Amino acid sequence: MSFARLQDKINELKNPTVVGLDPDLAHIPADILEKHTKELGESLEAASLAVVEYNAGLIDALCDIVPAVKPQSAYYEQLGPYGALALSKTCDYAKSKGLYVIIDGKRNDIGASAAAYSAAYLGTVSVGESELMPYNADALTVNAYLGSDGIRPFIDTATKYDKAVFALVRTSNPSAGELQDKTIVDSSVRQGTVLCLAEDETENRPLSHGGEKLYTAVGELMEEISRDTIDKYGYTCVGAVVGATYPQEAEYLRNRLKNTFFLVPGYGTQGGSAADAAFAFDKNGHGAIVNSSRGIIAAWKKRGGDFATAARYEALAMREELRKVLY
Amino acid sequence: MSFARLQDKINELKNPTVVGLDPDLAHIPADILEKHTKELGESLEAASLAVVEYNAGLIDALCDIVPAVKPQSAYYEQLGPYGALALSKTCDYAKSKGLYVIIDGKRNDIGASAAAYSAAYLGTVSVGESELMPYNADALTVNAYLGSDGIRPFIDTATKYDKAVFALVRTSNPSAGELQDKTIVDSSVRQGTVLCLAEDETENRPLSHGGEKLYTAVGELMEEISRDTIDKYGYTCVGAVVGATYPQEAEYLRNRLKNTFFLVPGYGTQGGSAADAAFAFDKNGHGAIVNSSRGIIAAWKKRGGDFATAARYEALAMREELRKVLY
Repeated sequence: MSFARLQDKINELKNPTVVGLDPDLAHIPADILEKHTKELGESLEAASLAVVEYNAGLIDALCDIVPAVKPQSAYYEQLGPYGALALSKTCDYAKSKGLYVIIDGKRNDIGASAAAYSAAYLGTVSVGESELMPYNADALTVNAYLGSDGIRPFIDTATKYDKAVFALVRTSNPSAGELQDKTIVDSSVRQGTVLCLAEDETENRPLSHGGEKLYTAVGELMEEISRDTIDKYGYTCVGAVVGATYPQEAEYLRNRLKNTFFLVPGYGTQGGSAADAAFAFDKNGHGAIVNSSRGIIAAWKKRGGDFATAARYEALAMREELRKVLY
Repeated sequence: MSFARLQDKINELKNPTVVGLDPDLAHIPADILEKHTKELGESLEAASLAVVEYNAGLIDALCDIVPAVKPQSAYYEQLGPYGALALSKTCDYAKSKGLYVIIDGKRNDIGASAAAYSAAYLGTVSVGESELMPYNADALTVNAYLGSDGIRPFIDTATKYDKAVFALVRTSNPSAGELQDKTIVDSSVRQGTVLCLAEDETENRPLSHGGEKLYTAVGELMEEISRDTIDKYGYTCVGAVVGATYPQEAEYLRNRLKNTFFLVPGYGTQGGSAADAAFAFDKNGHGAIVNSSRGIIAAWKKRGGDFATAARYEALAMREELRKVLY
């Protein structure tokens, strides 16, 4: 069923927004952090408790208007083991409020280790006779550079537990294209076919024949290996990260990857607009969810006032922007 | 300076081995796990304590003969927040025994989040006026699919704290080549040059001109962006993961990436031999370290007897194999 649970929730709320819970300590109001450092000193434990409190405030303010949250694992890992506890508590709380939880960990490894990652975030681990759930997430971002055998364990776990992954395809950062936009010659070259690229095919755009961009090959590989998992909306359990900052690429990929659900970072602070993000959706307005992190969770720093109220205001504004271009 | 501390230690012990601490629960002797589950039930906490005890036994048995250990993060993460604590304790204990610690996390993200990962594993985090160290590692594996701006924060942190990273270049798994071996057309194509690959250039080997493999481009990008950090041995702070299971690729990369230190997985259980791994070293026998995980830490399952004694026996055997081909 892969992404069907997420699409159902998006439809219910008429809002394809996921809020990135990226708790940079600089985003957390000083009084929250101070409350915990007064008790526990300037420690990673105090910082982690502040993160949990801040996230809970955001979740309470947003859970009736947004379908999903996406904790960015780096900000939790930087608080050490206490940060892992903060991630776990954040996932549990978000789930208790009905949110779909995407852990943004961009995990990747060879088969056996990939299976351990999939157990960690999407499945269960056996200790003796007991099956235990380490982190209670619905989806995880993954990186496909190691090829299909690094992704298949995630597909197996996702299938078993009705979960999903998003593989990095075309990311939103400025240097995304350095490797992802490399033009590759197709598999016929390996069979010894002569290949020529004529001059008019060499612009910096997806090539229609004779070569394609690496990110397209990654996206197609992901769709191909997950084809058995297509859900009622037509999407497999392996989605794709496709940045809103590159709308041309998003449009191309939307046409090319008919069965792939897109996670779209880059909206707002990074420069992507609702119109840019719209290219990631299919003609029914399905098949994608747009992320905003700082723009929502740190809105209080621009708008002033209470952080939760500011976040809700910005999330409602983003919902309206997306509704205008999509529905 | 980057990898110099590691190369010094390799020279001192005449052993370029890193032992992978990949504590699959099935590798841990039953009596260790049972001791903790009796006290704490079949819980992730009990499993994590068993991991810490098992790792400590391995570290005690190996620290005078091997220079480095490489905890595989997936096996710790699958135990939830208690697993993060087990990783932290394992790093601290290994450091206290003089080992160089490489966390195998294959982390990757866009700039701000990459900075958080680099702080987590190689640097420090500010809480109030205090600078705190979340995980006390010497190096971290990273994935370069997002391009240079996802790697530069690691270079900055590595430079500041005398740490290093290893970027995935050519991995050891069976499907490694699906994306990593894609033949890419070089940057001249972007400038509109006509490019032709003749039939004799289309075999499945690194191409000498007209195109190159993706993994070569990744390796060259990593060397290029870290060139300012070259140490006394000639290596930058961004190393490369290059599997022993593909010796032809390793030889090619060794010649191509003169200033890149290699981490070589795939020895032993995965099928790579000492002779295969030897291609990763420079003519002085420097510039690489070979990983073995299961072959050493789970040796007791094949050899019987005490797990620590079995691990030491296998580590000594591997040292002899490597010495034969290298020194």
